[in-house]
Order: sequence, then C-alpha cells, then structure tokens
Amino acid sequence: MRQLGYYNGRVGELSEMMIPMNDRVCWFGDGVYEAAMARNGVIFAEDEHVDRFFNSASMLEIDMPVTKPELKALLADLIARMDTGNLMVYCQVTRGGGPRMHCFPEGPSNLWVTLTPKELNPATAPVALITAEDTRFLHCNIKTLNLIPSVMANERAKRAGAYECVLYRPGGRVTECSHSNVHILRDGVFRTAPLDNLILPGIARAHLIRACGKLGIPVREEPFTLEELRSADEIITSSSTNICVRANQLDGQPAGMKRQELFDALHEEVYREYFEATGGMDVMS
Amino acid sequence: MRQLGYYNGRVGELSEMMIPMNDRVCWFGDGVYEAAMARNGVIFAEDEHVDRFFNSASMLEIDMPVTKPELKALLADLIARMDTGNLMVYCQVTRGGGPRMHCFPEGPSNLWVTLTPKELNPATAPVALITAEDTRFLHCNIKTLNLIPSVMANERAKRAGAYECVLYRPGGRVTECSHSNVHILRDGVFRTAPLDNLILPGIARAHLIRACGKLGIPVREEPFTLEELRSADEIITSSSTNICVRANQLDGQPAGMKRQELFDALHEEVYREYFEATGGMDVMS
Repeated sequence: MRQLGYYNGRVGELSEMMIPMNDRVCWFGDGVYEAAMARNGVIFAEDEHVDRFFNSASMLEIDMPVTKPELKALLADLIARMDTGNLMVYCQVTRGGGPRMHCFPEGPSNLWVTLTPKELNPATAPVALITAEDTRFLHCNIKTLNLIPSVMANERAKRAGAYECVLYRPGGRVTECSHSNVHILRDGVFRTAPLDNLILPGIARAHLIRACGKLGIPVREEPFTLEELRSADEIITSSSTNICVRANQLDGQPAGMKRQELFDALHEEVYREYFEATGGMDVMS
Repeated sequence: MRQLGYYNGRVGELSEMMIPMNDRVCWFGDGVYEAAMARNGVIFAEDEHVDRFFNSASMLEIDMPVTKPELKALLADLIARMDTGNLMVYCQVTRGGGPRMHCFPEGPSNLWVTLTPKELNPATAPVALITAEDTRFLHCNIKTLNLIPSVMANERAKRAGAYECVLYRPGGRVTECSHSNVHILRDGVFRTAPLDNLILPGIARAHLIRACGKLGIPVREEPFTLEELRSADEIITSSSTNICVRANQLDGQPAGMKRQELFDALHEEVYREYFEATGGMDVMS
C-alpha cells in the first residue's frame, strides 16, 4: 500500500478513505493526535509517543478505545501492510460522533491511523526562521487538533522562505514554533522553555536534553526571551520528523552558528540514538 | 429528508454522509462555520450570517468556493428538500485537502451544509450559569472549528446542571460563554463586551443592541468584570438559537432577576423581529 488510512477498523488507501460527516472532528476539531517516525518497521520512541497520546486524550477526558498494547499491536499490523518500513506514523483519537452539540456525546471515541512513507534525514542544511506573536490557546501542552494558529504561522514562514515560525508571548517570552520546539545554546548552556501549558512536551526535546546530559552540556529549562534568541550562540529546532535542526537566520538577519562543535555533538548524539534504535547505522553516512 | 448533509455538491441523510479523510478539518480543524435559524423556510438575518461567514473565511485566508448569491441559492435549494422549514441551518468551509501539511494546500476549499429540524422557543425559563477562566486563543472574533475549549466549558456547565459557562480572562474581564454572548443590565444600562478579538460578533447581540436603541435603553460596549456580572440587575445570554435568555443563578448563587420589565421589553422586541421576519407572529403565543 502506498499511503494507508485506518478508521475504526476500516483500512484503505489514504486518498480514498472516507469518514463520517458527524465525527466531532468535523465540527469542533475535538481530538488529539500523535506523530512518530518508523525506520525498518520500528517506531522510534514508541512508548514515549504512546504515553503522550494517552496523556493528551486523558487531559481532555477523551476515552481511548484501545489499550496501549492493543494500539502498539495495531500499528505493527498496519506497518506490515506497507511497501516500506520507513514511515511517518500518525494516530489520532476523536471524541465520537452524533448530532452536533458542544457537550460530550454518549458513544465511543474514534481511532484513526495514517502511514506515509518518509525518511528521516539528518543532513539538513541550516534554516531560516521568522518570529510571530503566539496567539494560541493556553492548552499547548496537549497535542490537539485545534491547530489553526499553527497553520497560519507555518504559512507565514513558508511565504517568507523560512523553515519555521518561532512564537513568543506578550513580553517576549519564546514558547515554541508552529510544529517544533525551539532551543538555544548560550555561553555553553542548552536553554529550553519549561514544560508548562505553553509548549508541547516534545519527545525530540527530551532526547536533546538527555544528549546534553551525556555530553556534559548544562541544561536550563527556564523561559527565555526573543532578545536571548536573537543573540544566541546557536538556535536549534526539534520535532519528531526533524530531530535537530540548526538555524542561521532569524527574521532575515544572521543568527546563531557560533558553536559548531557543540551543535555537531548534539546532532550526532540524537541521530545516533535514532539509527541505533531502528536497525543500525548503515544509512547514516 | 430528516436531517440533511451537503458536501461539495453531494447531498444525503446527515447520519449517512461521508467526507474524505484528508479534508484539512480532520487534521487541523482548519475551517470556519456559521449557524442560523430558519422558520417557514426563511433564514433569519440571512445577510448578516452570510456576511459573517465570508468575513470569518477571509480573516483566515480561506477562499470561498461560492459567491454570496450562490450560497443563498444553494441554501434555498437545500431547504426546499426538507420536510419542514423550521430548521437550524449550519454551513462551514474548510481549507481543502491533500497530504497533511500545516501550510496552505493548492486545491479548492470544501463547502459543507447541514440542515436539522429545530424550533426557536421564546418561552425559555430562567437558567443557571457557571463561570470559568477563558483559556481560548486570541482569535475568538473568528467563528472557527477550533472549539475544544468551548466543548470543555460547555461540558462543565452540563455537569453542574447549568445552561452555559461564562468565561473570563485573567483579571476578571468577562468575555462570552461557550456558545453564547453574555450581557448585563446595571442601573438601567445594557452592558456588553466590545467587539475585539476576545468575543464573537454575535448577530443576536447586534439585534439586542438595536432593540435597546428602539426601547431607549442606553448601551455601553465596554469590558465588564466578573464582579459586575455577579451584582448585575439582569444577566442575559444570546445566540442565534436562543436569542435572549435570562439567568437567575451564577455559580450556584442567586443572580440577576431585578429588572423584569426591562428584560421583558428586550425579549419581546427581539422575538417580535424574528417572528415578523419569518412569516408572521402566529406561533408566538
């Protein structure tokens, strides 16, 4: 199968899959999701993704229609149907269906999966970033399907020829990007926003922090400002599909790129972990 | 037809309608909507609803796949297929489909309509309200499909046995409810939040303001606080499906209910307008 879609037990080619009009995702975006990379059929950091998926659902009181082992078995079964084991693995759960009403429905939740061929590429060239005010809701720690502000920020980045849009709250506190976390190196310290309701607890972020521990790089999980971002020694974005990306431009001005050796060490460490966990280092050249 | 669903030219019984899994509503809630009441086949305040629908789409740069006259003709055609002309008329437009990516897709937008039998009932008994912090994003002036915080607030109201949940921002500024605007009468003045990015420009709200003008009730469109709400002479919520509702309880305490004659005059005026515009007063008894 080229691209797979799964919905409550039905499986088909993604572009041909249909879902009921009265799924609450259609009226309220009422659901949460998760996205992970697989290589050689192995989902990287699967337990962390599954845990976060269940946490997101729990925070919105969405009942999961499967247990964690059942979900992992389902994903393995679906991955086995694909032509390749190098994939983006995407799941979501939506809060049931029925007549449009804001309050919770009676029926069961709906489980969705998509599988799309994708290779994780460590050899990313440095990227340009832009900045914009963070106008999102105060539940950014939950991986919800209410993503319009992220859509708008990402489109803004694309139009500016940039890779990502860094968001900041009034007062200049940097939060994260449209679909990545953002971190800085300053004076040899890895700085990243703390885990509150303003950022997603990124799994690549957790791996970068762990890599810092191994490499002896001090970590500060505290708010940092737009000014600290602009004058950082390095600016790094992370997401499950782009684990460690270096920025060389911010709002059209040169930025970062002052600690090559620290960036390289972090980059090598997180990618080594990825390739080792998913079948060996053979393609890392 | 009992309940009608329309999607890009396809029409069917709502509970059986299917939509493509790759509509961007499924991944991002990427769309805007509108809901209006029809009576005797006449959509009340149709031009106001159509204008707001197009404005919402425009603010998010979603291309409308029809003109305003085309939309009105489509709605008239769909209403004619129903067994009754007393309906909730619901439309939404979503930003196309295709592979999941945050930035805008190339293809056309998707147009959705649902029609559901519903009678507008003026004889609503006074209701209970609760309050909660407003944690929504800063685009509440746009009628989007990113409604999880409203879902959660409405469910909270339901569990408390209340009709609605009144939201307030830090500092105590009252904004609106989970799917209604909220207003107060204090010292003979109609107070309602101003039209900024924190509230929806309600059409029933506009009609209440106009009714105040006719009745000689002064109007102040300025922020008011939770404290002012608690000690108001009357608390009124409004939405297109419940134009003018009186509250007698707030967070379990008695509230409002001190200016019966003013409330009755407003209530009578907005319902008179509704019934006159949709085929006469015969059922208003």
